[in-house]
Amino acid sequence: MAHLITVELTKEKKSKPAADKLGFGKYYTDHMFIMNYEEAKGGWHSPRVVPYQPISLDPAAKILHYGQSVFEGMKAYRTLDGQIQLFRPQKNWERLNKSHARLCMPPVDEDLAMEALERLILVDQDWIPEEQGTSLYVRPFVFATEPLLGVASSKEYLFIIILSPVGAYYAEGINPVTIHVESEFVRAVAGGVGNAKTAGNYAAAMKAQELAAGKGFTQVLWLDGVHRKYIEEVGSMNVFFMIDGKVVTPALNGSILEGITRDSVMQLLRHWNVPVEERTISIDELYEANRNGTLQEAFGTGTAAVISPIGELNWNNEKLVIGGGRTGQLTSRIYDTLTGIQNGNVEDPFGWAVKLGG
Amino acid sequence: MAHLITVELTKEKKSKPAADKLGFGKYYTDHMFIMNYEEAKGGWHSPRVVPYQPISLDPAAKILHYGQSVFEGMKAYRTLDGQIQLFRPQKNWERLNKSHARLCMPPVDEDLAMEALERLILVDQDWIPEEQGTSLYVRPFVFATEPLLGVASSKEYLFIIILSPVGAYYAEGINPVTIHVESEFVRAVAGGVGNAKTAGNYAAAMKAQELAAGKGFTQVLWLDGVHRKYIEEVGSMNVFFMIDGKVVTPALNGSILEGITRDSVMQLLRHWNVPVEERTISIDELYEANRNGTLQEAFGTGTAAVISPIGELNWNNEKLVIGGGRTGQLTSRIYDTLTGIQNGNVEDPFGWAVKLGG
Ligand SMILES: Cc1ncc(COP(=O)(O)O)c(C=O)c1O
Ligand SMILES: Cc1ncc(COP(=O)(O)O)c(C=O)c1O
Repeated sequence: MAHLITVELTKEKKSKPAADKLGFGKYYTDHMFIMNYEEAKGGWHSPRVVPYQPISLDPAAKILHYGQSVFEGMKAYRTLDGQIQLFRPQKNWERLNKSHARLCMPPVDEDLAMEALERLILVDQDWIPEEQGTSLYVRPFVFATEPLLGVASSKEYLFIIILSPVGAYYAEGINPVTIHVESEFVRAVAGGVGNAKTAGNYAAAMKAQELAAGKGFTQVLWLDGVHRKYIEEVGSMNVFFMIDGKVVTPALNGSILEGITRDSVMQLLRHWNVPVEERTISIDELYEANRNGTLQEAFGTGTAAVISPIGELNWNNEKLVIGGGRTGQLTSRIYDTLTGIQNGNVEDPFGWAVKLGG
Repeated sequence: MAHLITVELTKEKKSKPAADKLGFGKYYTDHMFIMNYEEAKGGWHSPRVVPYQPISLDPAAKILHYGQSVFEGMKAYRTLDGQIQLFRPQKNWERLNKSHARLCMPPVDEDLAMEALERLILVDQDWIPEEQGTSLYVRPFVFATEPLLGVASSKEYLFIIILSPVGAYYAEGINPVTIHVESEFVRAVAGGVGNAKTAGNYAAAMKAQELAAGKGFTQVLWLDGVHRKYIEEVGSMNVFFMIDGKVVTPALNGSILEGITRDSVMQLLRHWNVPVEERTISIDELYEANRNGTLQEAFGTGTAAVISPIGELNWNNEKLVIGGGRTGQLTSRIYDTLTGIQNGNVEDPFGWAVKLGG
């Protein structure tokens, strides 16, 4: 079904940053997609591509007070043969709507969202960087705009998509990161909103991240908020460990985000006949596995970094080095395959790559 | 110390709503206070009172994605002799800065904030309603504006104060509310941000509130996220119970907001020689106290409603009626005294009332 998306082109194109200066989420393309939700007008309306521009908000807009908002993140790639492809975008729209349900926000038509994204990317396709490791990061987000201070869900929202050309996530390349195992702060707890991609989760995580960075660690490993001993996530990534030839990742328990990269890694491992298990994993189990020599590899998974090898854990002043602090073999293979499928250089037996305008 | 707050008056005053139509947080006065924080410019700058107006935000502004924000709430009253008074405003500025520290936000000069508030209220003093139960609600809020998608604390913020003339919080007057005891959803957990007044906590609470409202309950009583049995708060209020002549309220444990009304109620009770205790209270204890006839009164405390008597708890389909579903004697006495001190009709032995321009 074709939706009535209008397009207003910019009169003044921005100059594009150099590929080696991109960083992450610093530059935005010439256009954005925006549509409004107003309960009083029957729901979502006025889907449009417009020049990238500031948003005007009433100071009482609910997003500024009560944080009702959801976002997504995915990447678009320019393939060697000049096509544009996305990676499992439908999963992002599904997750967006799951997050919406948790945050009392009205669902978005997934076909319309997909069409909006395609239109926007095609308009700004000159912005897709082509160098190794670069991509066009896609950030859809939805937030409450009704200017009312009563604590209740908003009857008005904006849905926006912005695009940002990005470089490799870690400036140093795919080098193993050092991790602080967090024992004071908690990211989320079952019954809360940890499994929704909502703004407040990220604000809540900043303190631990800054303290860890101050001690020289790249990321925080979150433990569960109830027993304070089960592994949850690493920074804004899901996390995997290879123990004695078997790959394990924390089971989805309500406080962990259901990562799309996580799901892809599990499918890839099964495809390769590498045993993979979703279950509870305690921090003690990792230290024990390390002592008996069975902790082989560890990595984080997420759209931004794709795969981030973990070289070191630090828990209550006890340092644990994984795989000699070097990127593991399986970790490398997953990274190469997944990024290859994403940018079109590796064959995709899963049907994950979605070509635009195709 | 006098700060250089500039004042720009509106050219077009709005018409004021009728006192019986006020509601809560629906109408805003003619002006607002705003100041900017930019790390690159040395911190907070340009404090100013300006006409109430929309804010312009880059679509990548961090508040829209990562929810870094803090707010406060207090009330200004017009006394019978025509003066304007606030209730313990210094406590709000202290709590604002505590919340800021947790959310990695730069502190605000509390004297400047106080001066800003006084200037703003004086400019819009015609908006302070005078009818019984009405007041001018004050909403200071601070949020991240830097247009960067990396998950890290912002280097730019806006601090804004808006004012809203409000009626009595519960339209029905001070009638006991019915409470759903929440056993699926969790508001906050120790190690998280439950003790900070930050936007994400309120978004996270909406689902349970809407489900409870759908079942006919006014508010949700939150249990702790670890054991799922200790009382935390009621909606956006702290909560007190009178058991066998003694008043108890949950101890501050990291996941409960440190309410200013809560602190005032405890001081008032001590002043009256009514025994009051801060400690853990399990939901079982309340049901047990009800069975043996010692559960006498219950009420919530918060700036919006001041005191909200609780008539009924509902936990796993077991209904518990408190004090015959009527407002308790002590609850009434606290309500009358506290609102009396706030609006200047009752003597204030504590020095809580702060006169403006005095
Ligand atoms: C908290 C959190 N966990 C995990 C992930 C990984 O999810 P995905 O693989 O879908 O990017 C993300 C998003 O990047 C996240 O924000
Ligand atoms: C979550 C929460 N708990 C308790 C309170 C009560 O705090 P105060 O008495 O300072 O208004 C509030 C604010 O009104 C709140 O938002």
